[in-house]
Amino acid sequence: MTTKSDDVKLIGAWASPFVWRARVALNFKSVKFESIEETMGPKSQLLLESNPVYKKIPVLIHAGKPISESLIIMQYIDETWTSGSSILPSDPYDRAIARFWAYYFDDKLSPTIRSISVAQGDEKKKLIKELGEGIVLVEDALKKISKGKDYFGGDQIGYLDIVFGSIFPWLRVVETLNEVKLVDEATTPGLVNWGEKYPKHDVVKDVLPEHEKLIEYAKFVIARVAASTASTPN
Amino acid sequence: MTTKSDDVKLIGAWASPFVWRARVALNFKSVKFESIEETMGPKSQLLLESNPVYKKIPVLIHAGKPISESLIIMQYIDETWTSGSSILPSDPYDRAIARFWAYYFDDKLSPTIRSISVAQGDEKKKLIKELGEGIVLVEDALKKISKGKDYFGGDQIGYLDIVFGSIFPWLRVVETLNEVKLVDEATTPGLVNWGEKYPKHDVVKDVLPEHEKLIEYAKFVIARVAASTASTPN
Repeated sequence: MTTKSDDVKLIGAWASPFVWRARVALNFKSVKFESIEETMGPKSQLLLESNPVYKKIPVLIHAGKPISESLIIMQYIDETWTSGSSILPSDPYDRAIARFWAYYFDDKLSPTIRSISVAQGDEKKKLIKELGEGIVLVEDALKKISKGKDYFGGDQIGYLDIVFGSIFPWLRVVETLNEVKLVDEATTPGLVNWGEKYPKHDVVKDVLPEHEKLIEYAKFVIARVAASTASTPN
Repeated sequence: MTTKSDDVKLIGAWASPFVWRARVALNFKSVKFESIEETMGPKSQLLLESNPVYKKIPVLIHAGKPISESLIIMQYIDETWTSGSSILPSDPYDRAIARFWAYYFDDKLSPTIRSISVAQGDEKKKLIKELGEGIVLVEDALKKISKGKDYFGGDQIGYLDIVFGSIFPWLRVVETLNEVKLVDEATTPGLVNWGEKYPKHDVVKDVLPEHEKLIEYAKFVIARVAASTASTPN
């Protein structure tokens, strides 16, 4: 099902993992949309009006009505464009498990990745160790949820793939900038396989930026944070 | 629709607002369940096995399968026992708005209430002011979402009523212990009305503990935290 592109707008930014989720979900459902890029500097009037509580991207605007928070946007897309495959599993228990791990990713992995980028010395080492332990939990979850298939969604991508798929490129950035390996054949073979396939998926490949471009962006953000202790990371 | 009580178990504790949500949601759907009280001290083997990632209550165990996180449990209950009224609104946009405010309650209000209980002096004053500003946002949300009816759910309680309904009794505790008024006729008339009706609702009234009992519990916890800077609040 497609919708007139002027009915669906997404306020986002190319480097935001939370925006990638909304973009992939819209692609998954073949929904045409207008991308409105929020640039650095003062927030746009449209963003301030559309998400007055958090003033954060992404915001999906459908027929003039704004929806915020990436996980909520993904569920909205799934519940609004109902033809074709579903993003969330259909079984209530599978849905609960998917929601649980999505919560875990955002509650534990994303904040740790952000903290690593600006941490120093022993604190940084401790956080990288914690992140590695989290990734091992994700490997276990993938094994159980995918039932031996390629994706969390089984044979095709689904909710958890899209959610973890926005964290994975930043994991790779952590690996490169800190010369560590968090996803490897020995400890996380399922995620190695997943990481080779997911970014090349048809509905994903034009959304995720290249690794080198993210590295450059990460270095820029880290330098900016270092230059001013008053500013916040991201 | 009812289920054999041995099929549905809830690991909880009487003073936990997150557990109240699961209990009210089960009552709302007339699901019989066995309540398993997690006491202070070492965590039970059942809890550790049922929620190995967070080791936190509530955990709903349905036909032997555990589900964690109160908002996820509530959605599971709504999607599993589908006869009768729904807990979440049926319209996708209304659902997104309900999920957004539930997220806001847990992201902003709950942590602020916890912090107030152990904060001192100016820090405490600042947090109480923040909480008051949050409550004014909730009043605005109630006005818009309820469309002038008593509840977030309209004429009957729903998702946001149950979620906010677990925060409200602790708001009252903050008011009593700090001799402030956060919910009053002048600034939050909708919430005053809501606060008179919700706790007396048929599916709620046996779940929420009495105010005096919560005050006593809060004093106990605050004293315990004060006695040991190493322990965490709650």
